[in-house]
Formats: sequence, structure tokens, C-alpha cells
Amino acid sequence: MATLVLLRHGESDWNAKGLFTGWVDVSLSPAGEAEARRGGQLLLDAGLRPDVVHTSLLTRAIQTAELALGAADLRWLPVRRSWRLNERHYGALQGKNKAQTREEFGDEQFMLWRRSYDTPPPPIADDDEYSQVGDPRYTLLPPELMPRTECLKDVVGRMLPYWYDEIVPDLAAGRTVLVVAHGNSLRALVKHLDGIDDDTIAGLNIPTGIPLRYDLDAEFRPVTRGGLYLDPEAAKAAIEAVANQGR
Amino acid sequence: MATLVLLRHGESDWNAKGLFTGWVDVSLSPAGEAEARRGGQLLLDAGLRPDVVHTSLLTRAIQTAELALGAADLRWLPVRRSWRLNERHYGALQGKNKAQTREEFGDEQFMLWRRSYDTPPPPIADDDEYSQVGDPRYTLLPPELMPRTECLKDVVGRMLPYWYDEIVPDLAAGRTVLVVAHGNSLRALVKHLDGIDDDTIAGLNIPTGIPLRYDLDAEFRPVTRGGLYLDPEAAKAAIEAVANQGR
Repeated sequence: MATLVLLRHGESDWNAKGLFTGWVDVSLSPAGEAEARRGGQLLLDAGLRPDVVHTSLLTRAIQTAELALGAADLRWLPVRRSWRLNERHYGALQGKNKAQTREEFGDEQFMLWRRSYDTPPPPIADDDEYSQVGDPRYTLLPPELMPRTECLKDVVGRMLPYWYDEIVPDLAAGRTVLVVAHGNSLRALVKHLDGIDDDTIAGLNIPTGIPLRYDLDAEFRPVTRGGLYLDPEAAKAAIEAVANQGR
Repeated sequence: MATLVLLRHGESDWNAKGLFTGWVDVSLSPAGEAEARRGGQLLLDAGLRPDVVHTSLLTRAIQTAELALGAADLRWLPVRRSWRLNERHYGALQGKNKAQTREEFGDEQFMLWRRSYDTPPPPIADDDEYSQVGDPRYTLLPPELMPRTECLKDVVGRMLPYWYDEIVPDLAAGRTVLVVAHGNSLRALVKHLDGIDDDTIAGLNIPTGIPLRYDLDAEFRPVTRGGLYLDPEAAKAAIEAVANQGR
């Protein structure tokens, strides 16, 4: 049996400001840093020691991994990173205020962009100040792979090769794997793990800063559907709070 | 031509207290954290962007890499770690006060342990509170490789396989490589690069927190012997200060 632990980064500077972030590389807020440390403490308290860590290429996830591992005295763990674990690219909405966007485009369009499985926001222009074209961390990404916008379906499509090719081999080798990533890249992974259908996934929120443990069988399917949060009560409260975001 | 950048971690809690550290896993002091950030700023100011980072398994080197890369907006770089880049194992001296050790054993023995190329301190007992036997980060290290004490010659011997097998291939692929490590693992590497003989290496000190750039030819030999510090004046002052340490 293999163990997978998912950790969503905590509050960033732009979460705090109510802006669509996506691939824009913002840092954790002080509250987000505290969430990350607490996530590491929860690992320590549970006696759950990962053998390897995977992160996205975005600073807020990397900071979360560093702070959580620091709190658990595990800075020395091997770490691998990939753009395939990045947050959903929010297209032309990146850098826009969520409340203003809702007001400008109306509730229906706003919720479609936020929660529809297969409707991406309009693509971002390459010369937009919040475009990532030219960012040195993506120089090895061929132009046809570089997203200009993504829906959750797109995230599932680009995340799954990393799951199969990089994470599953670690699990198969008997390693406990920690994945530190984002709301939507983790929703994409949970959708796959728990076999959630395209409509139901819209209602699934993953709380920030609370490690989510999945024990997996020989076919890398969850023994317990939905996994187990290391702090179930805080997770429940946080899931309700996230569901109300942008209202 | 390939570029290699060496960065020695800054002041740790035990440097500040004048204790032999070796493989004991202590954190950076606040002064050491500031040195690390300044090291990253020096990289940024020099327009020197590494493509990959190698660190030891010790927290003070990993923190230095994290803080320097944070200051240079490069947290997303791929990082690899190895025990082969660890500080010299100080044997039974680990945890001992430097000034007291000098007083107890005399100047000659003290300097022999600190600077002799091939005389290690007495080995540490496995049940010593400062032994690393049982430390989870070394579980994959077979007992015959786990050091109980080391002289600089031992460090050269265990560091060079990592140089040849992990760092040189990165350089050969055209990557600019940053190595964040320790006084003695970096002295071992510099001894090899600059072809310094066993006696002369005793007088070589590498200052903390100041990136040292080596441009290497097709045979991975320095174009300029000794490399180039990104802040040469601070390096010169720091080299003199290190030479006086423990006096």
C-alpha cells in the first residue's frame, strides 16, 4: 500500500486582495506562511514522514513546501518540480478583481469561468502584463504547450502525464509522496483518484494548508474515497468558507 | 564554456557559539540568513542565473539556497541534494567548544585536527548525542559509507564522485550550476578544480555568503585559477577574518 499526501498552499498576497492569480507568480501572505508551517506541524504530529516532495513551479507552492518541511524538520527531502502541477491558467482574468469581474460579467458568466469543467476564460494576450510568455521558468516549454487560458479539463489533461510518469513510480517504489500544489491542480488529481464525474467536481473544494492523506491500493486507487484530512474539523470549516469565496 | 558558482552557507547558530558542527544539523543564525539573502542579491546584480542547484543534506546549506534563490526570484529552479556535499564530519569534536578544545589539547593538536589534510579527529561514538547514526536522512547510506570522522582527504574522496557523476553532466549540458555547501566540501572541490597540493590547501579559506564564479574550459578546468568572487573586496576581508577563527 502506498501513501500520497496532498497539500494546497495557503493564502497568497493576491488571495488576500481578491484577485484572479492563476500562473501569476505571487508570494504567500503572512497568513499563508503560518498555514504552511501548521501544515508541516500536522504532518509531524501525525508521524507522517514523506520520502519525496513534488511541487509546481510557482513560488507560493514552493514556499509552502519549504515552510511545511522546515516545521517538520524535513528540509533535506528530495524535491521535484513541474509546470504540470501549476495552478489553472486563468487566461485574460489573471490580475483582475474577482468581485469586479462578477459585477461586470454577471453571476452566470462568473460562475461558468470559475466552475465549469470545460469552459476556459478568454485567452490572455502575449503582451498582457500578466502573461507568462518569456518567463525564464518556462523556456523549455514549447510554444504549443504554453497555456494562454485553461479550464479544469485542460488542467486534468496536462497534470495526468506527471501523475503517471513521475508520481506513480515514486509510489510504486514504496515512497510516501507529498504533493504541494494549488486548488485546481489538486482538484484535477482528486477528480482522477476518486473518479469524480465532470459535473460533481464543480462542488469540490480543497482547503488550504491541511494535509490530505490518501492510502492507495496496488492499482493506485484510494482505499478510502476522498482521503483523510489530518485535521478533519478544520478541513470541514475551511471547505465551507472556500465555497462562499467571491460571494 | 561552462559556469560553476559556489556558495558557502553563512553563520549558523553553532558558528555563533564557537562550537564544532560538522554533520550536526543546526540552523542559520539571523546573521547567516541575511548573508544568504545578500548572496542571492549578488547573483541578481551580476545577472548570473543558475539553471540548477545542488545542496548538501544539511539544513544550513538548504536554508542558504532557499533564501538566496528567494532573493534572486529563482525558487523554482530544480534542486538536487547529496550527503556527498555535506560539511566535513568532525568526529568526536562535534558539539565541543573550539576555544576549550584548543585549551585542552594544545595549539598543535588543535591546528592538526582543523587543518591537517589527512589526520581526522577521533571518531564519534554511535551513542554520542551528536552522532548521526539513525538520522532518517542517511537511511539509504550503507554503514560502511557513514562517516564517524573525516579529514579533508576523506571529504575529497567522498565528494568527487558527486562532482563527476552529477555536477559535470549538468555543466556538460550547458547549464550554469550553483553549488550551495560548506567550508570543507567547497575547499575539497576548489582543491580539485585549481589543482592545489595537500599542504597548500591548509591555508585556503572560502568566505561565507559570497558567490564564487568559475568559468570552466572544455575539460572542466578553471579559465581563471581561484575563480572570481562576485564581491571581491568583501571576500578578501572575510578570508582574513576566517583565518583568525578560533584564535
